[in-house]
Amino acid sequence: MKIDVLTLFPRMFEGPMGESIIGKAVEKNLLEINISNFRDYSDNKHQSVDDYPYGGGAGMLLKVQPIYDNLRRIEEVSPETEKRVILLDPAGKRFNQKMAEEFSEEEHLVFICGHYEGYDERIRSLVTDEVSLGDYVLTGGELGAMVMIDATVRLLPDVLGNKLSAQTDSHSTGLLEHPQYTRPAEFNGMNVPEVLTNGNHKLIDEWQQKESLRRTFERRPDMLKKVELTGQQLKWLEEIYNEKV
Amino acid sequence: MKIDVLTLFPRMFEGPMGESIIGKAVEKNLLEINISNFRDYSDNKHQSVDDYPYGGGAGMLLKVQPIYDNLRRIEEVSPETEKRVILLDPAGKRFNQKMAEEFSEEEHLVFICGHYEGYDERIRSLVTDEVSLGDYVLTGGELGAMVMIDATVRLLPDVLGNKLSAQTDSHSTGLLEHPQYTRPAEFNGMNVPEVLTNGNHKLIDEWQQKESLRRTFERRPDMLKKVELTGQQLKWLEEIYNEKV
Repeated sequence: MKIDVLTLFPRMFEGPMGESIIGKAVEKNLLEINISNFRDYSDNKHQSVDDYPYGGGAGMLLKVQPIYDNLRRIEEVSPETEKRVILLDPAGKRFNQKMAEEFSEEEHLVFICGHYEGYDERIRSLVTDEVSLGDYVLTGGELGAMVMIDATVRLLPDVLGNKLSAQTDSHSTGLLEHPQYTRPAEFNGMNVPEVLTNGNHKLIDEWQQKESLRRTFERRPDMLKKVELTGQQLKWLEEIYNEKV
Repeated sequence: MKIDVLTLFPRMFEGPMGESIIGKAVEKNLLEINISNFRDYSDNKHQSVDDYPYGGGAGMLLKVQPIYDNLRRIEEVSPETEKRVILLDPAGKRFNQKMAEEFSEEEHLVFICGHYEGYDERIRSLVTDEVSLGDYVLTGGELGAMVMIDATVRLLPDVLGNKLSAQTDSHSTGLLEHPQYTRPAEFNGMNVPEVLTNGNHKLIDEWQQKESLRRTFERRPDMLKKVELTGQQLKWLEEIYNEKV
């Protein structure tokens, strides 16, 4: 997979992209990632990338020209790839696991990270997707791009050592994960549930499934509506409900 | 404000925390930020921080002891502050702008970033909040902590140069922002809407309000339910609706 990032703050990517899963994917040649500073593409002698908004208003807007020319350059360097061009924007579609799965099937992702008050509207005509990380305001698109890259790259074949890991996480099964414990069996008076220590795998499996349902029921009942529950799961849900009242 | 971050990958924070708004807030002495590696607190001679889950299962879990001792150390260094201790976790409450506002009122935030398959359940007893960035799976909590720090710190008084900026962003007014344009008036055949160039501020203001409604109606109708609309806004909504059909 190829990833290009257009940003005014390329140094922000140094730590996160070198460490952790993304650095490993690059080392293994599973991923090629290029960070470019679109200021380098400004045709203005002061290399400006922003300007005042038409009609007035606070702050500055990103101009269309530097981003347009940076995208053209990416097209020249990689004319053969199908590109998904993603604008990080609070008015975009909310990023979710399904989108990460979709992105992980692509050949070439291009992320455009804004800054300042906003974009010239015509920048939107250059992209295939406008995506938002969530309902909160950030100072720029850089962290959003990093999050989306992380969520996407970990789904690429051979990136995570243990394939099972990508599948059993919360938000992949549709339910939240059950509580988990590791040694010591007792810490500051807090004990591991006995069922987990007695080696009966059938009982352990049932406990884990039921506690996964319980956690989802208590914290994210909205998620239950989106999964098809088995008869056994419905029975457990009833038990959980009755234990509460 | 004080912020502590507990992580196994402190280098991930170098770029993002130095550049941009957060670095500026630290320079202005509005923020003190400490990144600690909880591996340094492991009482194990191999400095291990993870172990196999009780009851079996794929992957490793973070142990409670290193995090417990790291938190104790933060308490020793800053005994006088009220702390909000936030665990980054996909099963947590979804982060949003209201939470960022709440966090920005706090004296001392502590973020615990996980990695690997999950946490020993007893770690949850050490925190005040469990927060998720959104419905997607990341390889660790580090990027999530950075996003929450960015969203929070930009709300601190005197961090953003222009106070108006923090208020007029999308997700602060409850509506998405209207389209914006900057020079040139024409780019590759795409023109700035005439109303924005004729200097009539009353018309410009109306156009901006109506287009903000239109964008919200088209992309995020769910947001409209959460704001109290004026009579004029309702009239515009009707017009927007009729223009569509």
